Amino acid sequence: MKTISQELYKKAKKIIPGGTQLLSKRPEMYLPEQWPAYFEKAKGVEIWDLDGNKYVDMTNMSVGACTLGYSDDDVDNAVINIIKKGTMSTLNCPEEVELAELLLKIHPWAESVRFARTGGEIAAMAIRIARAYSKKDKIAFCGYHGWHDWYLASNLSNDSNLDGHLLLGLKPAGVPRSLINTAIPFEFNNIDQLEMIIEKHDDIGVIILEPMRHDAPKNGFLQKVRDIATKINAVLIFDEISIGWRMNVGGVHLNYGINPDMVILAKAMGNGYPIAAVIGSKKVMNTAQEAFISSTYWTGRVGPTAAIATIKKMQRFNVPAYLDKIGKLIGDGWQKLADKNELDITIHKPNCLISFSFNYPNTRELLTFFTQEMLKRKYLAGTCIYVSYAHTEQVVSAYLKVINEVFKILSTAIKNGNVLNLIEGPLKHDGFQRLIS
Amino acid sequence: MKTISQELYKKAKKIIPGGTQLLSKRPEMYLPEQWPAYFEKAKGVEIWDLDGNKYVDMTNMSVGACTLGYSDDDVDNAVINIIKKGTMSTLNCPEEVELAELLLKIHPWAESVRFARTGGEIAAMAIRIARAYSKKDKIAFCGYHGWHDWYLASNLSNDSNLDGHLLLGLKPAGVPRSLINTAIPFEFNNIDQLEMIIEKHDDIGVIILEPMRHDAPKNGFLQKVRDIATKINAVLIFDEISIGWRMNVGGVHLNYGINPDMVILAKAMGNGYPIAAVIGSKKVMNTAQEAFISSTYWTGRVGPTAAIATIKKMQRFNVPAYLDKIGKLIGDGWQKLADKNELDITIHKPNCLISFSFNYPNTRELLTFFTQEMLKRKYLAGTCIYVSYAHTEQVVSAYLKVINEVFKILSTAIKNGNVLNLIEGPLKHDGFQRLIS
Repeated sequence: MKTISQELYKKAKKIIPGGTQLLSKRPEMYLPEQWPAYFEKAKGVEIWDLDGNKYVDMTNMSVGACTLGYSDDDVDNAVINIIKKGTMSTLNCPEEVELAELLLKIHPWAESVRFARTGGEIAAMAIRIARAYSKKDKIAFCGYHGWHDWYLASNLSNDSNLDGHLLLGLKPAGVPRSLINTAIPFEFNNIDQLEMIIEKHDDIGVIILEPMRHDAPKNGFLQKVRDIATKINAVLIFDEISIGWRMNVGGVHLNYGINPDMVILAKAMGNGYPIAAVIGSKKVMNTAQEAFISSTYWTGRVGPTAAIATIKKMQRFNVPAYLDKIGKLIGDGWQKLADKNELDITIHKPNCLISFSFNYPNTRELLTFFTQEMLKRKYLAGTCIYVSYAHTEQVVSAYLKVINEVFKILSTAIKNGNVLNLIEGPLKHDGFQRLIS
Repeated sequence: MKTISQELYKKAKKIIPGGTQLLSKRPEMYLPEQWPAYFEKAKGVEIWDLDGNKYVDMTNMSVGACTLGYSDDDVDNAVINIIKKGTMSTLNCPEEVELAELLLKIHPWAESVRFARTGGEIAAMAIRIARAYSKKDKIAFCGYHGWHDWYLASNLSNDSNLDGHLLLGLKPAGVPRSLINTAIPFEFNNIDQLEMIIEKHDDIGVIILEPMRHDAPKNGFLQKVRDIATKINAVLIFDEISIGWRMNVGGVHLNYGINPDMVILAKAMGNGYPIAAVIGSKKVMNTAQEAFISSTYWTGRVGPTAAIATIKKMQRFNVPAYLDKIGKLIGDGWQKLADKNELDITIHKPNCLISFSFNYPNTRELLTFFTQEMLKRKYLAGTCIYVSYAHTEQVVSAYLKVINEVFKILSTAIKNGNVLNLIEGPLKHDGFQRLIS
């Protein structure tokens, strides 16, 4: 079917290499040639495409950036009010100091703050400061930390180093060869591996990891990482860009009582307005004074204003507790309806990032078929939901009715062995791959 | 004098290393302990500080980011309207395609576009793509290109490599040592130096420069650089973050008829809303398909919307021609009033970035004294003005009356040899230096 959205995306692929600015927003990651690609309007959990179709978003709410829901009135009104006063000038905006104080109040171990506008650049900033402090260039890392050289360098020695860390097939093209062996990966919850790394390399200056994402830390993992970092004089950075603000208001590390040296935050903190922060101990962060870290558009007023309004609303309504409740409702619903329809799935926590997997071979086909059938019913859906404050119980209840329908179709198709025949377009992509434009 | 602004800045320096997010917005760069530091409101060329003082901005209009003037109604209304439709969703915003098409229409040699949200990251993105294309890691550069590793690496071999390129004293702390000798500086308009570099290094894959800033290219400099890049199979990048949109609507390279392989744009393009773009030939830009370059907050709708509104307004009113006219008025005024008051100054073009220098020793003292006296008269002023569309002839005329007064005071103080005695606080900073918080 030829739609305005699809036509625009075809045009985009001709003039925007990769089609979109974020890999996770490529239509091919969901349902090639059918996913609506562009939105005209978004409010709460509803999205209108360019063809006038209205969908309910049961995927990732802008990859975790809009946890209060789209177009949240409190955040938007705060931003509109500040726009009327001027978003930028030769002088600085007081909101950045207010946001810094708010972040420090939420994270009492931290003493110092700097800002950026995207997750990738705040990670690069944290790495710069950490290397400057430790005076050692090598990094041990776990998890996903963005597109910058320091991270992609990991794949210079081995093309598959990053495969276990969220996205498959990331290429280090354009990353200077001299950075080879500066970033060494370790697996989550695998403390032995990290210990082997520090035995082999005596110059690890930085350890960076997501303190959790889909898996929770086990057997005192975070404390053990903290102890290793302290022992080898490495700066410990927790990347809370994805998990932060979802399990609690702030970084999830607060729940584990582990104090890193630095934490990076972004995504949900701005509810759709670019803002990112690094918080840390004064001792480490003061090294930023020796390193040149400076950008004009970090001085804008919209980002801090949106973040203050977002965080205060999260606090006011205890949004993380709500996400947990709704996520549980969804997970329980999936399990019940899978059982009812004789579909074999496994539910994965945490509830705020609730997901399920199909226990069958050919997962990619099943995922494509699932998304196709949900889209026909006006749901944007995959197998992972970044739950938002706008996902009401009514939204979940209506969604689960459709899930029942689609699980039944899937179950029948699996039994009949004709999933592939029922898929009306190309299979979804699994990871990073070249687009044909 | 204890002011709310000064008190807030003292607090900021305790929790934000470096005090501000941009070196060029540090109060110490203008008038330590007196510069108002923070704004409550900004409109046109007027800025209100936190203490209720109103100033006229005759400095840099947010370091070149607000060329239409602060809080421009056309841009702000476009942004507010889009906020009401939702700034972000799991789907992409069509405005990024519209902006891409607009940029390509303005730059007919270019075929391909990617976006970011700050100048620093768009430069890093262009370098990544260029290195991926040329498959050679070394960079020859001229001018200022931000805070990222690839650029600061230049100072790993020599602490003063970057001194001639806008900012003094930039430190490579935290930049991996293995990047040593990957970025080699050359002087603007010095083609012999660039030729020596390519003779010495056979693996230069990227040449990046500002096609102009305060000095215009001479003796076919840009064409010669283009020829060298072609000869050695290096990707030629023009950094138009500072000069772009000021001399003409688009990049200044259009005026010289030289086609680079890529151009980076930011600052004035968003009139205070974060947005940055790299445009380039399809051949080079398509390498972005092989390199992982992806960020959630690059998908926001505010940046492209602001850029479209800003560019269209620049086109509608031929803003660059206006900047030229007003800049000339200011420059002529300075010269006339300097002559009248027997003050020896030199005017520097281009008019859109009009500036003057004092032809005396102890320039730092004179600059501090000048800014101090202008501030007393409610002008934010240094010796360089990023002219904006909001600088009306009336604004200039009122400003020049005050200049006459202050030039007279300066001239007398110079004759009496008591400039230093008349300065009421510490001297302004010259470049990058550690703050005492």
